Amino acid sequence: SVPQDLDLELLETVMGQLDASRIRENLRELSKEPHLATTPRDEALVQLLLQRWQDPESGLDSAGTSEYEVLLSFPSQEQPNHVDVVGPTGDIIHSCRRSEENLTGEQGGPNVVPPYAAYAPPGSPQGLLVYANQGTEEDFMWLSNQGIQLQDTIVLTRYGGIGRGAKAVNAAQHGAAGLLVYTDPGDINDGKSLPNETFPHSWGLPPSGVERGSYFEYFGDPLTPYLPANPSSFRLDPANVSGFPPIPTQPIGFEDAKVLLCNLQGILAPAAWQGGLGCDYRLGPGFQPYGIFPAGSQVNMSIYNRLELRNSSNVLGIIRGAVEPDRYVLYGNHRDSWVHGAVDPSSGTAVLLELSRVLGTLLKKGTWRPRRSVVFASWGAEEFGLIGSTEFTEEFFSKLQERTVAYINVDISVFANVTLRAQGTPPVQSVIFSATKQIPAPGTSSLSIYDNWIRYSNRSSPVYGLVPSLGTLGAGSDYAPFVHFLGISSMDLAYNYDRSKTSARIYPTYHTAFDTFDYVDKFVDPGFSSHQAVARTAGSVLLRLSDSLFLPLNVSDYSETLRSFLQAAQQHLGALLKQHSISLGPLATAVEKFEGAATVLDQHISTTQKGTPDPLQVRMLNDQLMLLERTFLNSRAFPEESYYSHVLWAPRTGSVATFPGLSNACSRATNTGAGSAAWAEVQRQLSILVAALENAAATLRPVADL
Amino acid sequence: SVPQDLDLELLETVMGQLDASRIRENLRELSKEPHLATTPRDEALVQLLLQRWQDPESGLDSAGTSEYEVLLSFPSQEQPNHVDVVGPTGDIIHSCRRSEENLTGEQGGPNVVPPYAAYAPPGSPQGLLVYANQGTEEDFMWLSNQGIQLQDTIVLTRYGGIGRGAKAVNAAQHGAAGLLVYTDPGDINDGKSLPNETFPHSWGLPPSGVERGSYFEYFGDPLTPYLPANPSSFRLDPANVSGFPPIPTQPIGFEDAKVLLCNLQGILAPAAWQGGLGCDYRLGPGFQPYGIFPAGSQVNMSIYNRLELRNSSNVLGIIRGAVEPDRYVLYGNHRDSWVHGAVDPSSGTAVLLELSRVLGTLLKKGTWRPRRSVVFASWGAEEFGLIGSTEFTEEFFSKLQERTVAYINVDISVFANVTLRAQGTPPVQSVIFSATKQIPAPGTSSLSIYDNWIRYSNRSSPVYGLVPSLGTLGAGSDYAPFVHFLGISSMDLAYNYDRSKTSARIYPTYHTAFDTFDYVDKFVDPGFSSHQAVARTAGSVLLRLSDSLFLPLNVSDYSETLRSFLQAAQQHLGALLKQHSISLGPLATAVEKFEGAATVLDQHISTTQKGTPDPLQVRMLNDQLMLLERTFLNSRAFPEESYYSHVLWAPRTGSVATFPGLSNACSRATNTGAGSAAWAEVQRQLSILVAALENAAATLRPVADL
Ligand SMILES: [Ca+2]
Ligand SMILES: [Ca+2]
Ligand SMILES: [Zn+2]
Ligand SMILES: [Zn+2]
Ligand SMILES: [Zn+2]
Ligand SMILES: [Zn+2]
Repeated sequence: SVPQDLDLELLETVMGQLDASRIRENLRELSKEPHLATTPRDEALVQLLLQRWQDPESGLDSAGTSEYEVLLSFPSQEQPNHVDVVGPTGDIIHSCRRSEENLTGEQGGPNVVPPYAAYAPPGSPQGLLVYANQGTEEDFMWLSNQGIQLQDTIVLTRYGGIGRGAKAVNAAQHGAAGLLVYTDPGDINDGKSLPNETFPHSWGLPPSGVERGSYFEYFGDPLTPYLPANPSSFRLDPANVSGFPPIPTQPIGFEDAKVLLCNLQGILAPAAWQGGLGCDYRLGPGFQPYGIFPAGSQVNMSIYNRLELRNSSNVLGIIRGAVEPDRYVLYGNHRDSWVHGAVDPSSGTAVLLELSRVLGTLLKKGTWRPRRSVVFASWGAEEFGLIGSTEFTEEFFSKLQERTVAYINVDISVFANVTLRAQGTPPVQSVIFSATKQIPAPGTSSLSIYDNWIRYSNRSSPVYGLVPSLGTLGAGSDYAPFVHFLGISSMDLAYNYDRSKTSARIYPTYHTAFDTFDYVDKFVDPGFSSHQAVARTAGSVLLRLSDSLFLPLNVSDYSETLRSFLQAAQQHLGALLKQHSISLGPLATAVEKFEGAATVLDQHISTTQKGTPDPLQVRMLNDQLMLLERTFLNSRAFPEESYYSHVLWAPRTGSVATFPGLSNACSRATNTGAGSAAWAEVQRQLSILVAALENAAATLRPVADL
Repeated sequence: SVPQDLDLELLETVMGQLDASRIRENLRELSKEPHLATTPRDEALVQLLLQRWQDPESGLDSAGTSEYEVLLSFPSQEQPNHVDVVGPTGDIIHSCRRSEENLTGEQGGPNVVPPYAAYAPPGSPQGLLVYANQGTEEDFMWLSNQGIQLQDTIVLTRYGGIGRGAKAVNAAQHGAAGLLVYTDPGDINDGKSLPNETFPHSWGLPPSGVERGSYFEYFGDPLTPYLPANPSSFRLDPANVSGFPPIPTQPIGFEDAKVLLCNLQGILAPAAWQGGLGCDYRLGPGFQPYGIFPAGSQVNMSIYNRLELRNSSNVLGIIRGAVEPDRYVLYGNHRDSWVHGAVDPSSGTAVLLELSRVLGTLLKKGTWRPRRSVVFASWGAEEFGLIGSTEFTEEFFSKLQERTVAYINVDISVFANVTLRAQGTPPVQSVIFSATKQIPAPGTSSLSIYDNWIRYSNRSSPVYGLVPSLGTLGAGSDYAPFVHFLGISSMDLAYNYDRSKTSARIYPTYHTAFDTFDYVDKFVDPGFSSHQAVARTAGSVLLRLSDSLFLPLNVSDYSETLRSFLQAAQQHLGALLKQHSISLGPLATAVEKFEGAATVLDQHISTTQKGTPDPLQVRMLNDQLMLLERTFLNSRAFPEESYYSHVLWAPRTGSVATFPGLSNACSRATNTGAGSAAWAEVQRQLSILVAALENAAATLRPVADL
């Protein structure tokens, strides 16, 4: 009998049935109320998802929830956080807004959580204000070099450049007593800042809008690293958790930031530190003596955040594979939002529900069952640090690592409606390309998503020529534990804006109370055709992964990455290493071995595909493809960085696109003497890398070779 | 077509062809010269193995070597180690032998390495002698409690009780300047100690015999933990290696030990510390004033050991599997010996060569090819700390972990010729039972190996009733990295003596220059029928693992282990834990879940076996069986103990047969207050265990269950 393979007709059927208006209706329902993690509306959405996935006519084979007891952080309802300017006599001269302006009727009410920095400790620091740009280590060094005293100050930074938590860590390290973070209109609105140029009049961020967010530096439930957060699990004492922001921190809107920043005294900040508030940014410390605040005025922060153990649910739905039920294609998104979360994450969940409806309907009709199992997931408490997905990977570590073919993440499905933006590890590039070549781009053009994408973001591949540029995965959404902790080939898919037309860091109402259904419906994706395009892309990728006889994972695309990392290392680090008698020769040899093995495997796959392979031959090849990504894990490579064990995609501090462990170790060693521990670490990182690549190459070679 | 399954006729053919006299000839050749790791004779044996495995008529599909650059330790040839009694005026009154007595003409010559403690540092400590029994922590505590000053003394201990390295660590911790270790005739010869009652007149250890050995506390090349020891690999500075003995150490024979120990002054050692030297053992410090040594005589040790980087080879031979070449059955033994090593390890290598000859011949004739791949290995430098096997697991970590069905170790194949002794993880019990029920026991009895075994070593299983007792695997041979580092189901097979007839710690000439071919031929296994029995057992187990359609790994036998560990924990630790409000309830629930999942899986396998399963259905089940052992690994469970990550088989200090992490943590916590870090560690270990068992159970459940 002919083995079950991808059915192109069925694929076309699915593409045709994915319905923009149903996605719109999903989004309306999902975003009609705020659904902060673990709140009643979040739990109501758990039930909504369960009901959809258990529907007798359009549901999956089975669906269920799993609950974890996790540590979240909330502002006090009784004592609202506040930030004020206090005069020398102790009177309050200016109070920052405690909530966003109610512009559309959706920014008020008890379920809109006031802006806060999750996991920032309570406290009431008061001090002179200093402006520290993005709060990077370099920014603080620059301030120090200017002779600016940071001890006991309140530091004001703008979002961007580095993660939220890192700003607090850096500020505290330099002596600051408190941290304020705001969104500069230059970074988010292309400079626009007036009420009539921003939402609800455009997609711009209103002056009162505040980006909420988690300031925890790592991911997963903070009290149970590497263990699932079951009620009986061992929990750290919160005092022993590393990665919490060390000082009280509060985000504010640019309306308030303008009052503070435009009244600072001191020397002018460098040009790169200036922004869109319409004044000269000065460094402080303290306010201009003849401005609106009396001389000696200070900023007081009163923060009353509390840590709370809460029950957070994941919802999981499964379609059993017909032929290889023990191979899983995972598709997930988080469910929790900061406020209404129409874009983040509901635009993704709306797509998820439409895709599961279409597939579920075909399943229930008996039209289709995938070759491999498909698992849909709605993660809880992502906004606090990818908690639901991380706990899931901790609980089912072995079976996920043994059996998962790939993880597809669609969080924000549409940032804007111009072009696809895809991120992933190299083996998924080819399946995204195949899928997007077959789907028309939304809008009036007759291009495919692929052809449209290549116009906005491309690169020259030594192997393929000009191709769309697949981005790399950081740790910004639920794919992180799958890539970094489990070593599963993963991707994140979305529609995005034209980066040549806007310099916005992200869509403007991100994590604010203005991220609502109307915002999406009017400004992000009117007609929802970009949502539909993402649903089709993700759906096509999913079907190709779940149904193809041969897994559409191209492991030889890793060769290109390794070669480019190697070349970057040779070019940018080679001379330095040579000075310390460290050769990149073994690394070059390992890259060559990988390339050689990948090429031979590719040929072997081609030959096998042309014949009539038996089921076990295909399974063996697929296992090699599926498991390649695992071979890059080394749990001892990065002892300091929680969960990061993928030696190619761990965080990298330098700007050279090369192997992160090597790059980071070189940065730390640069100013130390020969024979230092830091130089030994460079050599250790190099050996870890060589061993990982040799080990990877060994898995690609013919399986009965020694 | 009928899927390839175990062929019982072929199995019988193999059993019939395994030839005792060929094993004897192999042993004669293998043990005719000393073959200490990396010496020319060790390299010559590499060539011998290669030649056998590349033989066109009886070889394997392919064979090759892999070389690692590893840190070994040797005594100086120019400056022999020596141990002397020195009188108060500095004159030498007694010198311990520098080499064993040449009783058979094989104990002399440049290739017989003098007795030494590998990795013990050089140095010339001198001090009063103290007797410390086995050198355990309890022994030293007892000495301290007697008011005996250990500072700057030379400590004399006997072998046994704990590992070699631990004796040196304990002695150093209590202030000793040097350590001597001897073999007591009470522990090895059932008290016999005269020249005419020992080898070459019996299997007893001659008075001059000295047990050599590695005193490194961990395993693998000491300079490259977790990385293969390739020439370019990062190496630790030897000064930073933990696990080396901290003080000069030297093993001596009981001939010399008697002179030292029987002349000690001080109080009488406890009854349990007395031995077979024919005198009262006293504690010291120092010698009796009116004995053979002048008052104030001290012991001087002059140790000149040197660390050396050497190239050590593994030899690997492979038979490609016909159906599932990407599933490996591994069979290995080390090749290196301390001297001639007829028993250790050549009795195992002689069996290995005979088994590979028989299988190779069938292969070359075209009579047989296994369903799965078979890999034979001859490891280098085991005696220094399982180095060759450990480096191999480090180099091919991913592919071995993904693909290895089981590891069979046959190091010493015959300790003595009375009964089988098998050790392993629970999933291999059933295949060893199946194999041994079909093979006649050597000797005149008409019993099977199984029926003979059960007479000497048995236990009452709640599931099966009376069965032979399968021992647990420690870290005494090359299975250790496979079990503890890779989580591969493993076993060690040998023939052994009747423990009711002798109290010998091990066969008497272990690691001495008296472990020769004649010793085996005359005293250990005249006729070699026990060697043949082990060859048949190992061969049958190997064929069952390589050829059976359904893997003969019984994962539900882990239920019995988990239940007994749980009961032991409840019985012996429950009350203590309850005092600290720690419940074993979640652990009990996890054990139940495992049992339930294992039972359902067993039923599913039975049902499937009765039908006509397709190849993928079988493969999926087999993957569940093969990978179960991996699920018990947690690389963060035991941060202090190198390579140990199997949460069920890591070293356990207490005497209660229960979960090691829990047991060890409880021991450490016992005398600390509530709320101590030690009690938090107990809770952490409990959570690690619960998570591992839940994770394991999840892999046994139907693969498309959530
Ligand atoms: Ca956790
Ligand atoms: Ca190593
Ligand atoms: Zn999101
Ligand atoms: Zn978000
Ligand atoms: Zn051995
Ligand atoms: Zn040995």
